[in-house]
Amino acid sequence: MKATVYKGNKTFSVIEKEIEQPANGDVRIKVAYSGVCGTDVHIYHGMMDKRVAMPQTIGHEMSGVIDAVGEGVEDYKVGDKVVVRPLDDRKVKASDKGFNHICEELKFIGIDSPGSMQQYWNVPSFVLHKLKAETDLKLAALIEPLSVATHDVRRSGLVAGETAVVLGGGPIGLLVAMVAKDVGANVIISEVNEKRIAKAKSMGLHAVNPMKVDLVEYVKEQTDNRRADVVFEVAGVQPALDIMCEVAGIRGRILMVAIHGEKKPVDLFKFFWKELSLIGARVYEKEDYEKSIQLITENKLPFEDMITDVQPLTNIQQVFENIDNNPDGMKVLMDCQQ
Amino acid sequence: MKATVYKGNKTFSVIEKEIEQPANGDVRIKVAYSGVCGTDVHIYHGMMDKRVAMPQTIGHEMSGVIDAVGEGVEDYKVGDKVVVRPLDDRKVKASDKGFNHICEELKFIGIDSPGSMQQYWNVPSFVLHKLKAETDLKLAALIEPLSVATHDVRRSGLVAGETAVVLGGGPIGLLVAMVAKDVGANVIISEVNEKRIAKAKSMGLHAVNPMKVDLVEYVKEQTDNRRADVVFEVAGVQPALDIMCEVAGIRGRILMVAIHGEKKPVDLFKFFWKELSLIGARVYEKEDYEKSIQLITENKLPFEDMITDVQPLTNIQQVFENIDNNPDGMKVLMDCQQ
Repeated sequence: MKATVYKGNKTFSVIEKEIEQPANGDVRIKVAYSGVCGTDVHIYHGMMDKRVAMPQTIGHEMSGVIDAVGEGVEDYKVGDKVVVRPLDDRKVKASDKGFNHICEELKFIGIDSPGSMQQYWNVPSFVLHKLKAETDLKLAALIEPLSVATHDVRRSGLVAGETAVVLGGGPIGLLVAMVAKDVGANVIISEVNEKRIAKAKSMGLHAVNPMKVDLVEYVKEQTDNRRADVVFEVAGVQPALDIMCEVAGIRGRILMVAIHGEKKPVDLFKFFWKELSLIGARVYEKEDYEKSIQLITENKLPFEDMITDVQPLTNIQQVFENIDNNPDGMKVLMDCQQ
Repeated sequence: MKATVYKGNKTFSVIEKEIEQPANGDVRIKVAYSGVCGTDVHIYHGMMDKRVAMPQTIGHEMSGVIDAVGEGVEDYKVGDKVVVRPLDDRKVKASDKGFNHICEELKFIGIDSPGSMQQYWNVPSFVLHKLKAETDLKLAALIEPLSVATHDVRRSGLVAGETAVVLGGGPIGLLVAMVAKDVGANVIISEVNEKRIAKAKSMGLHAVNPMKVDLVEYVKEQTDNRRADVVFEVAGVQPALDIMCEVAGIRGRILMVAIHGEKKPVDLFKFFWKELSLIGARVYEKEDYEKSIQLITENKLPFEDMITDVQPLTNIQQVFENIDNNPDGMKVLMDCQQ
């Protein structure tokens, strides 16, 4: 079988290796598609070299079909379409208070252990979610990032009729916007890249450029001065942190989805004054996956537009180089059977 | 009657004026006690001279007895013991979403209009809460600041068995700690002033000095590594902002009670990583006042220890000068009938 490995120094190799039998409690998946996540790009850039044991097969946004089943696995059989929720919570402790998905000693499969950018992948069965027979495997590779969005929206408590502002129109921002709109909210995306704005609009989403319009005034006009009920901070930049407290109305909820690597100035007075809430959201829980699987299987949202490129697994080096050169792209999938 | 007025430049005067009849919808209160709030001290320091129309009678933490009733007031009668919830929300708008207590055009009585540091005080009846006949009027002057605490604790969702860390052991910090303990939580106060620590301990509260113990390790030891379920940030200083994200456990809720006048660095990564929430809390709602009235009337908590001085109204200048010279004091009441 073919597998890809990250070797450091912005370099991937495609290697040949033996197909392994699944251990007790594991299954072997014939991987169909593996999407490239922002985290994978971080790894490629060497930002996570201290954490990633090289050479390492990375990747965690995937879909596939069970190819072999280890001893003791009862709920899955060969031929089942599945996706992996790549959270290894086996070291969960009482002090994690039952929040297994963000437990202190969580291992992220595809970063801390081998990932899906290979033809066959052995994983413990507890990370699996079964798909319907009719679920499209290409779209199913979006279930992992879509579950970030379903988790964010669920954590926000967003309900129909509320207004949500999404700061940042990249892949996660668009998925959050789609899920928020599906809930019945009025959704406005704020994005500075005109190509991304055009992409969002082509998908039927409402997007504006905060460099061209006064976002706070725009949202006030759209909401009879109520401003946003929920703000999703997905941009990860200081101007987003500055505007999130302005665009949120009284008792607004601000979801912290972006990763800010260092301490940043925040207008805490606004939190006091308007009784705002800032709500951290990381990865997903089982029910977020179930919601995403339902959405992908129904396929009523413009998920197909999210996939801007599909490349054979063997093109991995080129794929990562292209992503650096094409910041307008959305989701690139690796076809793991080519 | 005697009234006090703030004239700017750290100066109060005691003046003689006519007792006025209450206008339609208003009542006249014979003020019993009026406590000095941190906001009053800010006014004395000239920090709010742009907002306070001088000469102005300030004060809003009070208790008293209705002395006269204007036309159209049906729910109150002469002789009723009352406190004032000093929020004038008559300019509330639809865009305030029903959160009248923090509505955009809220007027705070005692800052934006005359306050309680006088012998008789006319106020609209909609700001009144009736006390029981047996409620102690000296303790009742604590109902306003206690309602800040009952609001903070209610907003936090704190329940029995959880651990709360209160950052800052001043008057509001101690009241928050008392209410949190009354809920059934395990409460730890973090305070750097040894005299305040001694005060807290004398009231049966659990207080530690973060300059002398590693607060995070201390809380971990006290909680089997779970850390705090709720953190109340009442200190308003950068070290509190730094430690609040460390001392909070997974899915911890951090209440932003302190007023931070400028943007401050916050560890947003911790919000993402542990799915923390930051919850702004300002003033109080009706139900917070009702809860405080119940607590003060029952008088089972060490409220009397909070009152460290009672001075005649005519001593107002000396009272404010003394507060500046005695940062260890807790609550000073003005006796408005002397």
